[in-house]
Amino acid sequence: MTSKIITAGYVVIGDEILSGRTKDKNIGFLASYLTDIGIDLSEVRVVPDLEEKIVEAVNALRAEYTYVFTSGGIGPTHDDITADAIAKAFGVSIDLDPRAYKLLEDHYGAENFTPARQRMARIPDGADLIENKVSIAPGFRIENVHVMAGVPAIMQAMVDAIAPTLETSQKMLSVTIEAALPESRIAQDLGEIQKNYPETSIGSYPQSKDGVFSTQVVVRSRSNDVLEQASEAVRAAVEAAKTKFL
Amino acid sequence: MTSKIITAGYVVIGDEILSGRTKDKNIGFLASYLTDIGIDLSEVRVVPDLEEKIVEAVNALRAEYTYVFTSGGIGPTHDDITADAIAKAFGVSIDLDPRAYKLLEDHYGAENFTPARQRMARIPDGADLIENKVSIAPGFRIENVHVMAGVPAIMQAMVDAIAPTLETSQKMLSVTIEAALPESRIAQDLGEIQKNYPETSIGSYPQSKDGVFSTQVVVRSRSNDVLEQASEAVRAAVEAAKTKFL
Repeated sequence: MTSKIITAGYVVIGDEILSGRTKDKNIGFLASYLTDIGIDLSEVRVVPDLEEKIVEAVNALRAEYTYVFTSGGIGPTHDDITADAIAKAFGVSIDLDPRAYKLLEDHYGAENFTPARQRMARIPDGADLIENKVSIAPGFRIENVHVMAGVPAIMQAMVDAIAPTLETSQKMLSVTIEAALPESRIAQDLGEIQKNYPETSIGSYPQSKDGVFSTQVVVRSRSNDVLEQASEAVRAAVEAAKTKFL
Repeated sequence: MTSKIITAGYVVIGDEILSGRTKDKNIGFLASYLTDIGIDLSEVRVVPDLEEKIVEAVNALRAEYTYVFTSGGIGPTHDDITADAIAKAFGVSIDLDPRAYKLLEDHYGAENFTPARQRMARIPDGADLIENKVSIAPGFRIENVHVMAGVPAIMQAMVDAIAPTLETSQKMLSVTIEAALPESRIAQDLGEIQKNYPETSIGSYPQSKDGVFSTQVVVRSRSNDVLEQASEAVRAAVEAAKTKFL
């Protein structure tokens, strides 16, 4: 654990998310996972299966954040272009990797290790492999960029494999206060509490269920003491609001 | 309808998505909606409640795509900074908008129209309002950027309100072929079919259910004839693969 803030960017690669055909499940998973281990997910980009868009997104995020994660586009088909795009982003060569080649050849058997399947052994020069316990074909890490599969079960197994290698910071703690009123009735008070507790981040999240509006107020801080004080102030404001204007 | 391709970028604004606290439902909704009406969603960015990040994302996407949509951060609380960030992105002033002010004052009643609620009437100079049938507080459009609420029910109502004003292109048609085999067994053939039908986009989407891998092949084209021919070639390849190597 380090005293500096560790940040991450995430690039989701795939036409199927942008067309609406596949509903993404990986963003929410990675966001919760990183929060739990003390890494701040700071930005996500969803890009199509186009080399220039992948290169642009990866290069922008790897310059800005401690870590970058990508998912999608590392399978055996013609639309799986992520490994080549990452090699291009780093300006390194890419070829069949002997370690990945052996893993896959052992898995499929030499007679069934077709050229399409060999594509999954293409790894940029200088990268480390990321283990895939689900379906063998590995991901890879090059510098601060971690390249993973898009299928949620495989992506999640790869995140588990990567996690022990990551530097983390003091975990962001949070308290959620449920308020059975629309957020506009507590907005003024929340703004004042935020000013009084600058080391916290106070978020207000309106919800509507069967036409009734309620609000979740989430107080976040890396200090437990400050978190408790600010949360108590929010609870008091919510109670007070119930007897004030509508 | 126009013969050119109409594209869109989408900026999801909110710390709660990046922390994992809220699982996004808006990306999949907007992606499907735009596909259905003939607009290609080309890129999505999820950014935190930080003015500079909102400005950067909106300015990058509005220069690149026909339309930009944003959701989140237009409520009454201190963490709702989207309207001000959009004004900054366009270099225009922002103040209480008489049209929005009247809508909200009528809704809450003059005595309950608090300063926090008045915040929701702050609209950048030159913007048109977007109707909010669910909870009144409007979104707005400035040039090609449409600013919407983040609560899914409100966001969806706003998309319905905006849709009739959008230019659309020939709809992207698609056919999905279910293949009860792992994608590596059809990968080679799919690559060849893609080469033979360059006006299509052929995507291969592996799935794993209870440890069994299957594949959905999605063929997309704006021409129904080409779509049918390429789909038939994919169906034949899937049938042939069943009797080939494992």
